[in-house]
Amino acid sequence: MFDRIAIFGKYNGFQSWKSIDKLIKFFQDRNKQVLLDQTSCQDFPVERYGVPLLSRDKMLGQFDLAIVVGGDGTFLDVARFVVDQQKPILGVNLGRLGFLADVSPESMLSTMEDVLNGTYDCEERNLLSVAIFDQDEKVFEHLAFNDVVIHKPDAPKMIEFETFINGRFLKSQRSDGMIIATPTGSTAYALSAGGPIVDPSLNVLTLVSINPHTMSNRPFVVDGDSQIELRAHENCNGIARITCDGQITFEINARHRTQVKRHQHFIKLIHPCGHDYFQLLRAKLHWGEKL
Amino acid sequence: MFDRIAIFGKYNGFQSWKSIDKLIKFFQDRNKQVLLDQTSCQDFPVERYGVPLLSRDKMLGQFDLAIVVGGDGTFLDVARFVVDQQKPILGVNLGRLGFLADVSPESMLSTMEDVLNGTYDCEERNLLSVAIFDQDEKVFEHLAFNDVVIHKPDAPKMIEFETFINGRFLKSQRSDGMIIATPTGSTAYALSAGGPIVDPSLNVLTLVSINPHTMSNRPFVVDGDSQIELRAHENCNGIARITCDGQITFEINARHRTQVKRHQHFIKLIHPCGHDYFQLLRAKLHWGEKL
Amino acid sequence: MFDRIAIFGKYNGFQSWKSIDKLIKFFQDRNKQVLLDQTSCQDFPVERYGVPLLSRDKMLGQFDLAIVVGGDGTFLDVARFVVDQQKPILGVNLGRLGFLADVSPESMLSTMEDVLNGTYDCEERNLLSVAIFDQDEKVFEHLAFNDVVIHKPDAPKMIEFETFINGRFLKSQRSDGMIIATPTGSTAYALSAGGPIVDPSLNVLTLVSINPHTMSNRPFVVDGDSQIELRAHENCNGIARITCDGQITFEINARHRTQVKRHQHFIKLIHPCGHDYFQLLRAKLHWGEKL
Amino acid sequence: MFDRIAIFGKYNGFQSWKSIDKLIKFFQDRNKQVLLDQTSCQDFPVERYGVPLLSRDKMLGQFDLAIVVGGDGTFLDVARFVVDQQKPILGVNLGRLGFLADVSPESMLSTMEDVLNGTYDCEERNLLSVAIFDQDEKVFEHLAFNDVVIHKPDAPKMIEFETFINGRFLKSQRSDGMIIATPTGSTAYALSAGGPIVDPSLNVLTLVSINPHTMSNRPFVVDGDSQIELRAHENCNGIARITCDGQITFEINARHRTQVKRHQHFIKLIHPCGHDYFQLLRAKLHWGEKL
Repeated sequence: MFDRIAIFGKYNGFQSWKSIDKLIKFFQDRNKQVLLDQTSCQDFPVERYGVPLLSRDKMLGQFDLAIVVGGDGTFLDVARFVVDQQKPILGVNLGRLGFLADVSPESMLSTMEDVLNGTYDCEERNLLSVAIFDQDEKVFEHLAFNDVVIHKPDAPKMIEFETFINGRFLKSQRSDGMIIATPTGSTAYALSAGGPIVDPSLNVLTLVSINPHTMSNRPFVVDGDSQIELRAHENCNGIARITCDGQITFEINARHRTQVKRHQHFIKLIHPCGHDYFQLLRAKLHWGEKL
Repeated sequence: MFDRIAIFGKYNGFQSWKSIDKLIKFFQDRNKQVLLDQTSCQDFPVERYGVPLLSRDKMLGQFDLAIVVGGDGTFLDVARFVVDQQKPILGVNLGRLGFLADVSPESMLSTMEDVLNGTYDCEERNLLSVAIFDQDEKVFEHLAFNDVVIHKPDAPKMIEFETFINGRFLKSQRSDGMIIATPTGSTAYALSAGGPIVDPSLNVLTLVSINPHTMSNRPFVVDGDSQIELRAHENCNGIARITCDGQITFEINARHRTQVKRHQHFIKLIHPCGHDYFQLLRAKLHWGEKL
Repeated sequence: MFDRIAIFGKYNGFQSWKSIDKLIKFFQDRNKQVLLDQTSCQDFPVERYGVPLLSRDKMLGQFDLAIVVGGDGTFLDVARFVVDQQKPILGVNLGRLGFLADVSPESMLSTMEDVLNGTYDCEERNLLSVAIFDQDEKVFEHLAFNDVVIHKPDAPKMIEFETFINGRFLKSQRSDGMIIATPTGSTAYALSAGGPIVDPSLNVLTLVSINPHTMSNRPFVVDGDSQIELRAHENCNGIARITCDGQITFEINARHRTQVKRHQHFIKLIHPCGHDYFQLLRAKLHWGEKL
Repeated sequence: MFDRIAIFGKYNGFQSWKSIDKLIKFFQDRNKQVLLDQTSCQDFPVERYGVPLLSRDKMLGQFDLAIVVGGDGTFLDVARFVVDQQKPILGVNLGRLGFLADVSPESMLSTMEDVLNGTYDCEERNLLSVAIFDQDEKVFEHLAFNDVVIHKPDAPKMIEFETFINGRFLKSQRSDGMIIATPTGSTAYALSAGGPIVDPSLNVLTLVSINPHTMSNRPFVVDGDSQIELRAHENCNGIARITCDGQITFEINARHRTQVKRHQHFIKLIHPCGHDYFQLLRAKLHWGEKL
């Protein structure tokens, strides 16, 4: 039962207020407890509704369902926050249909009615956990829902780095970088870089090089339980960056070791009943249209 | 224990005789029983060694280990024959190092020594089973180790066909065809058509379109236990072909339904101890070399 | 001055009759002489309008402007017929906007009014001339507006062939074939096979391999005045096909030499005033849309 | 006649000294005047040979032939310096065979003998000239031999920018950037980003997007005399960078206009007699090798 609903908006996104307004009324009418995320909704006039505006720390353990009103970017941020509480998440898209936020504002309330009645589809997806070590000391730790990217800090210089999978050397490469993508991330940055689309139900990871300085490179699909290690080479100064979901970044050098693996928990996504990923692909990628 | 060894050569491949000669002596010296495949070795002077030359029918149940002396093409044919007997297979490459036939003639005998002593790596890989139906009648059935391809029978005409996965419509497409590849096949025809490389330990399938008449097409990686159905559209006359491993072909029209799924048995591949797929990739694909 | 107008329809394409009907009346009202192409319009009720239905032989020298009512496929056929008469050609698209037939039925009559008044854009484009020799004997000769393709006659077998440019060896390759595309053809089959888009004003040719059996292949852009020679290799039986514009085909073997070069005449395309190729690209290829 | 020879080394590249040593003796034996580039050879023991070490300013007008001893990177820098003096340039590669520095140290002296005797091939290639304007003021100006790249200054953020060709709008795009490559640059960064190979004799430019946020993007080949203008869009802060040959960089914002066009002078490259660009392609790109 979803008795406590946490609502997250688009950061500084006044355009989400109208939908949040409707959602609060909807849930209050049904005697549900509503919480509002302070990080994303700090200017929302909560006093009008009597709902608490809570910091993320205070939210821990206080909700049964997370609703994101925004785009896929907002969804990524909230998903990383929600995953360890093992609560499901649902996304209302503000603009165009998203791969993650796939409920439209128009159908939002009827979907919520169904969800409260237990009529919905739920799927689990993997996330990545990245840890960076300097000698034996862990100096950075973060989650990523779409991808972890190693890249040059500054565009005109290439980086050289080595990739190991489960302790075995895969290859050394000179390029602009490499993307380690979850199936969720396969339709994001990895797609721009030439990666395949991966069914989100699979527990695999895709390694997609960015502008590799060789012609024989190809995306590589590996087991989702692989442990991947990246090491920047001393050539090219050894300076590189590790970026999670295009949002959080950490600068590394040749001394650091970056370990990427599946996060221990999967995240639960809620979709309207009859949700069809293939239909989403066709709509977003113009499949079926001809040249 | 491998007491009965079946040896398969390259079809009409006299260049395999020298290696087969050595193998027969090697196994006879160790009191192993050797069988020779009639299909591929019919001109081999078996009388010199006193080994039986058997048709494939007669071979059924008569061997514990299959050794292929040839290239990857020969290996594909033998693998499809061997899989249902649940016996392992090992490949000696005659020319260049192959993805499947990965034992060189030079190291062949010491590898066999290790194998007989139980020192080897064994991995399992999936195969595809394709069945074509005309109404309710099954009119074609075959296995594929690399790939099942739907393609136009004659190059200058495009085909139009629909793809369903587990009964759900994926897309309609106009193109020169589409490849459904196992991880093993991901380094074969699917690679030429732009597909990703897939770790052979994964139970997934990759759908790779051939010259699609749209720019928004991408390889699609799906669960290896998916049931895939292909239907040629009445446009473009509805005439298409289904080809298994580039070797066996069947012509279909708009009435036929082609079903592709994982074959019930996995095949067991034997490699020399310490076999490293990543090293094979680096060697075959020039990974590590720079422009 | 365009006094004699030749109209070509879509082969067996009753859907073009309504537009042809309007065009005939339009030109007759303006005292222009109208000719109808027998090949494409043989069932059109010409007696109703008193316009002659002429075979292509009889059309030679009898018109000042060719109008194609159909799609890009029809346009290709007529362009190859018209080019040596050095008369301009204009295309009315029946279905979706085409790269070649870029006048819509709705704006057709006002465009014709402008054209008769001398208000239009005219551009020249190159075509290819292909000649196939057996020893010294020319056994095939044809024009191509989009592309000349060497390909395997039957899909599951690869071909091996050599390419020479201006007498110099470029490379030997195993693949499903290769496309030699004009700039016009760069948005047709060559685009499906991964080729670049080439501004149609350029006199260059693009060589695009089809599923090459190597990873280091890339489209190659050469001078439009290059002489290209293709030779099927004896491997793979030496049997291949040469196809012009996806419409005309000739089977070759290892004895034949196929020579491809720019046709001596350029073709003149007429567009509505202010025609913008970039806008066409944006519209046809969804440029500007985001994922 | 080449009477005055300017020699350029690899910056801080002691490995070039041995070859420079040989070249100086070779030319002094033939009574040629030798100049050494101060920028790249400042630590070279010139006093041993009595050759002047000149700044680039002082070199102007003082030499008939430029010899670069280094890799393609060194060659790019010297080519941009040499082009306006209309003197030819020749490259000795220190490491692996380069696309530009294509004379090996082993064959260096016999090639020089031939060059002094007038036996060599000479070809001309285009360069790019980039100018950046803030309102009407030119704030940056530079040459590029390989490419001009617009890119995000910092990897995790996309840029949005518009491209105009000869004043006409081509498209707006969100991506990691775009490469404008000369034919020379078509085998450099543009190749890593998926661009075609362009015969270096052609006067065309190729626009290659870097990880475009759309699936319908393709390399675009335009006339070498096109005027290309880039404008960063205010979205994504409007901050971007323009980089020439991966070596010189300038930060722009939405106010700036970046104009790229062919430099007025072509550069003359000297090659050993019988130089074969196709052979270079085959050697560098492993053409002819099979999977």
